[in-house]
Amino acid sequence: MPPPSAINVEAVTDTSGVTLPDPLSAPIKSNEIYGRRRKAEKAQWGVAAPADSASFRHCAHDHKPKAKRWDHRFSAETLSRKGNSLKQAAKYLGKPGLISLGGGLPSSEYFPFDTLALKVPSVPHFSELETQDSGVVISAGKHDLAADKSIFDISTAFNYGQGTGSAQLLRWITEHTEMVHNPPYADWRCTMSVGSTSALDMALRMLTRRGDFILSEEYTFATAVETAAPMGVRVIGIAMDEQGLLPDSMDAMLSAWDPSTRGARKPFVLYTVPTGQNPTGATQDTQRRRDIYSVAQKHDIYILEDEPYYFLQMQPYTGPGAPDVPPPSSHAEFLRSLVPSLLSMDVDGRVMRMDSFSKVLSPGSRIGWITASEQVVTKYIMHADVSTQGPSGMSQLILFKLLDEHWGHAGYLDWLIHIRLEYTRRRDVILQACERFLPKEVVSWKPPMAGMFHWLRINYPSHPSYPAKSIPELEEEIFMTSIAHGALVMRGSWFYADKEARHDTMFFRATYAAAPSERIVEAIRRFGEALRESFGLKGVNGHGEENGKDEDGVKKV
Amino acid sequence: MPPPSAINVEAVTDTSGVTLPDPLSAPIKSNEIYGRRRKAEKAQWGVAAPADSASFRHCAHDHKPKAKRWDHRFSAETLSRKGNSLKQAAKYLGKPGLISLGGGLPSSEYFPFDTLALKVPSVPHFSELETQDSGVVISAGKHDLAADKSIFDISTAFNYGQGTGSAQLLRWITEHTEMVHNPPYADWRCTMSVGSTSALDMALRMLTRRGDFILSEEYTFATAVETAAPMGVRVIGIAMDEQGLLPDSMDAMLSAWDPSTRGARKPFVLYTVPTGQNPTGATQDTQRRRDIYSVAQKHDIYILEDEPYYFLQMQPYTGPGAPDVPPPSSHAEFLRSLVPSLLSMDVDGRVMRMDSFSKVLSPGSRIGWITASEQVVTKYIMHADVSTQGPSGMSQLILFKLLDEHWGHAGYLDWLIHIRLEYTRRRDVILQACERFLPKEVVSWKPPMAGMFHWLRINYPSHPSYPAKSIPELEEEIFMTSIAHGALVMRGSWFYADKEARHDTMFFRATYAAAPSERIVEAIRRFGEALRESFGLKGVNGHGEENGKDEDGVKKV
Repeated sequence: MPPPSAINVEAVTDTSGVTLPDPLSAPIKSNEIYGRRRKAEKAQWGVAAPADSASFRHCAHDHKPKAKRWDHRFSAETLSRKGNSLKQAAKYLGKPGLISLGGGLPSSEYFPFDTLALKVPSVPHFSELETQDSGVVISAGKHDLAADKSIFDISTAFNYGQGTGSAQLLRWITEHTEMVHNPPYADWRCTMSVGSTSALDMALRMLTRRGDFILSEEYTFATAVETAAPMGVRVIGIAMDEQGLLPDSMDAMLSAWDPSTRGARKPFVLYTVPTGQNPTGATQDTQRRRDIYSVAQKHDIYILEDEPYYFLQMQPYTGPGAPDVPPPSSHAEFLRSLVPSLLSMDVDGRVMRMDSFSKVLSPGSRIGWITASEQVVTKYIMHADVSTQGPSGMSQLILFKLLDEHWGHAGYLDWLIHIRLEYTRRRDVILQACERFLPKEVVSWKPPMAGMFHWLRINYPSHPSYPAKSIPELEEEIFMTSIAHGALVMRGSWFYADKEARHDTMFFRATYAAAPSERIVEAIRRFGEALRESFGLKGVNGHGEENGKDEDGVKKV
Repeated sequence: MPPPSAINVEAVTDTSGVTLPDPLSAPIKSNEIYGRRRKAEKAQWGVAAPADSASFRHCAHDHKPKAKRWDHRFSAETLSRKGNSLKQAAKYLGKPGLISLGGGLPSSEYFPFDTLALKVPSVPHFSELETQDSGVVISAGKHDLAADKSIFDISTAFNYGQGTGSAQLLRWITEHTEMVHNPPYADWRCTMSVGSTSALDMALRMLTRRGDFILSEEYTFATAVETAAPMGVRVIGIAMDEQGLLPDSMDAMLSAWDPSTRGARKPFVLYTVPTGQNPTGATQDTQRRRDIYSVAQKHDIYILEDEPYYFLQMQPYTGPGAPDVPPPSSHAEFLRSLVPSLLSMDVDGRVMRMDSFSKVLSPGSRIGWITASEQVVTKYIMHADVSTQGPSGMSQLILFKLLDEHWGHAGYLDWLIHIRLEYTRRRDVILQACERFLPKEVVSWKPPMAGMFHWLRINYPSHPSYPAKSIPELEEEIFMTSIAHGALVMRGSWFYADKEARHDTMFFRATYAAAPSERIVEAIRRFGEALRESFGLKGVNGHGEENGKDEDGVKKV
C-alpha cells in the first residue's frame, strides 16, 4: 500500500521548475490565489458555456499518478451513459460570423429582472447586528458581462446552464478545493451538485444494483439509508467508537464476506461522514482516516466521503470555568487545524467527496459540489445533464457575488473561523448544561469535536424495568417521558444503518445548532428530569438546586 | 369511455350550494383569487414546514371522481418507497412549550445575508428599457416573517425545505394551476420540481423498468430519449402530422403489440409535448388531445404531459402585409384562447403534467412543478425528499416576491400576454424571412402556433444526388453547406425518438427564440443560399435580388 499522501498543508511545487507560493503560508488576500488566476477566455463566461474544473487549477498536478479506472464498479446505467447528442452542434459555434438558430434558449430580453442586490457582511463584521449596521450592498445587473462590469450577470446566470454549474462559480469551488484538500492524484475534477442528498442518490445509481450492500457507520444519516433502500440497496453497519467507524471491523467483515450466506456480492462502496458524523458527532482523526483508506485499498472499496460538517470543526473543549483556547491566528493555522480529508489522502482516486454550503452559508442555495476523478465526474455530469441539470442560476449568482467578488477566498476563511467559534460556543453551552443537569450514573458522553450533534449514551442496564422491557421499549419510554417534560431529542434507533441487525446500545441525539443558548440549557435540564423520572432517581434538578428558577434565571416549565 | 371533461373555462360550481365566481370572467385583480384566500396557519410558513397543495385549492373538487390508482404500473423502486423516518419526530413539535433539540437545521443567525432586493417590471411596463426606467425594487428581509412584514423571508427560504418546495410558493402554483387547468378529478395535487428534466427522470424511475418501451412523437426532445436510454428504456416513435402525434397510429401500434416479437411488455407510458412540440413546433388542437386521451384510456396508458411551451401559444399567423390579430382584451379571453391541456381533460387522473418557468420567466430559477393525482404526487415527493429535495430556496423567494407579492396572478397573466405578443412578432419575422429567402421547390413548412421552433421539411427526392446518396448523407451535406454559409440549424435526425427505426422524411429545426430579428433574417437568407447551392438551384438570393446587401440592409457574408 502506498503511504497516504502528505496532507495538504505542504508547499506545492510546480514541476515546470517554478515554485508556487505555499497557498497557506502566503497571505490569501484576494481571489488571485497564488498570485495568478489565469486569463480566461471571455466565451467561457457566456450563456450555457461548457465549464471544466481542470482549467481552474493553479498548482501542477501532472506529476502525480492518474486515478484508477472504475469501469468494473459502474452500474449498467452508468456504463451505457452517453453525452448529449445535441452538443455535437456546439463545435461549430466558434466559427467566425456564424449565426445560430440552433439552441432553444430563451432570450434574456424576457427575464423580468433588471438588478439583484444583497446586503451582506463585510469581513470581519459577521454578526447579524453588525451586518444590519455595517453590511454592504453587492449587486448584479442584467448585462454586466457585456458591459465588462463583471464576469457574471443576470442574463447569463438566469438562463440555462450546464450540468457542471457555471464556470464562474466552478472556478471558485475548484480553487477552494485545491487550497483545502489538494488531492494527491493528477486527474481530479469538481462539478456542482444540487445538494449532497442528490449527489448520494446519483452516486448510488452509478455504483450499485438491486440486492447490493453498501457499508456505513453502525449509526448513520437516516436519509442515506432511505435513499438507498428503494433502489434495493441495503446498508450494513460497521462498529464504531468515539472516532467513528472501526477499520478493523470493516476489514474483518469484508474478509469474512461470503456471498452465498449473505445473498449478495461483496460490498465495494463505503458511505462515511468522517467529521462530526450524524448522528454520533464522531470525528475520525488523521490516523483513523489513514487506516480506513488502507482497508479500502485492500478490498478495492470506493469511498463516498460526505462532509457537510467539515468546517464545523471546533476549538478544543476545555471544560467549565477553564479559559478558551485562542482562535486560529492566521488562515494557515486555521487550515492546519483541520483534520485532513480522505480526499487529501486519496492517492488512488477512490474517493468521491461531497461538499456542501448548507451548514456554513445557507441550505437554501441547494448548491453543493463533488470532487472525484475525471472518469467519475464525467459520468456524474452526463447524468446531471439529463436529470437535475446544474444548481439554480439564481443561487449561483448570489454565491458568486458573495464568495468570489465580495469576500474572496480570504474573506471566506475568515467567515469559516467565525462559524467555528460560534459552534464552539454553542457546543460548550450544551456540554456545560449536560454536566450540570444530567444524571451521570445513567448517561455519558464525549465532547463532540465537530458538527451539530451531541450523542448521549444511556446506561439502560441500570433501568429498573430492564431486562423486563426491551431496549426499544425503554428507548420509547424515555423519549415519551422527555416529550412530557417538554424536550424533544432524537432516538438513536432512528439512525440504525441496518434496522434488522441486533443492537445492544442506546443513545439519544441532541443538536446544539438550532435553538438559542438559553433554550438549549432548558431543554437539557428537562431531559435530565425525564431521565431521573424514568430511572427512578432522586434530585430532579441535579446538583441540589431548588425548583422554580435555575441560576441563569430560566423559568422552568 | 367517459366523455372528455368540459374544459376549464366553464364556471365552477361548489356542491355545497355556493356558486363560486367563474375564475375567468371575474376580474383577477390580486392574489385573493375568487376573493377568498383562506386564512392560513402561520406555522405553515415556518422553516421546513410541511406543505400540502390541497389546502391551497379554492374551488370545490370533492364532487368529482377520484383518480385511478397506479400501483399496477409502479416500479419496484416506487412501490418500496417509504416516508422519511425522522418525520415521526415532527408530530410532537406542536406541543405547547416544547423545546426541540431534534432537527439538525442551522440557525439563520449564520446565514450571511441581511436583505435581498430585485428591480423588476411593473405591470404593464414589461420591456427591458421600461424596467430600467420605471421598474420597482422589491425586497425581502431576513426576519420579515417574525416581524409580520411578509409570510416569506431570508431566514425561512434560505434554510432547509421540504421536497414539495415551500408552502408560500406552492400556494401560488396551486392557485395558478386551478385557474388555468382545473383538473376534472377530485384528488389532484401539485408539487415543485427542480425542472422538468428532473421530473421526467423521476417519472421514468417511478413507472418503468429495464427493457421497457415508452411512446413518444416520432421526432422528440432529444434529452428525453437520453434520460430514458441509460435506464434501459427505449422510446418508440408514433407517426405525426402538423398537429403532432396521430392517435390512430398510437392505437394501431398498441393494438398490434406482440410482446414476444417486440421483446418487451406492452408500453403504458406516453411522453408527449402537446404544445409547440420540440423539435417540430406542432400543437395538438382540442380534438386531437381528446382523441389521444381516448386512446390512452383504451390501452390504460399513463401520460407524461411536458408543457414548457404552453404559454408560448401565439396569435394566429396572418401572413406578410396583413394586419395583426388584436391581442386578447381580457385575462379571460387570453385564457380561453389557449388550447386546453390534457390535464384539464383528465377525468381518470392518468396525466402527470410538467410545468416550467424556464420559457416564460427564467430557466435559471430551476423551479418547475408537476400536477398529478395524490398517489403519484406523494410518491414523487418521497423520492424528492431523498434526492433532489425541493428547488433552491433563493429561487423560491425571488419568484414568490415577484409572482405573489408584486404581480399577483393578474400581473402574471399580463406578463404572459406580453410574452405571447413578443413570440408572435419573432415567429412572424422568421416566417416572412422564409417566404422571402427559401426556395419553395425544395423546402416547405407550416406556421408554428406555439413554442420556439420552426420546422422545415426538405423535399430530398428532388436533390440531384438522391437516391445515390442516402437521407442521412444528404442531411449532413445540407447541414455542412449551411454552416459554410454561416448559418446553424439543427438536423432533424438528432431528434429521432428511435434512431434504429426507418425514416423517410428530412427536416431542419430553426429557433426564433434566441437571436435578434435581423440576425434571424440573415441566418434564414444564408440557409436559403445553402439549400440552392446543395440542390443546384439558381437565384441564390431569392426573389431576384442582387448581391451585396438585401433590402433590409443586412450585410451579406
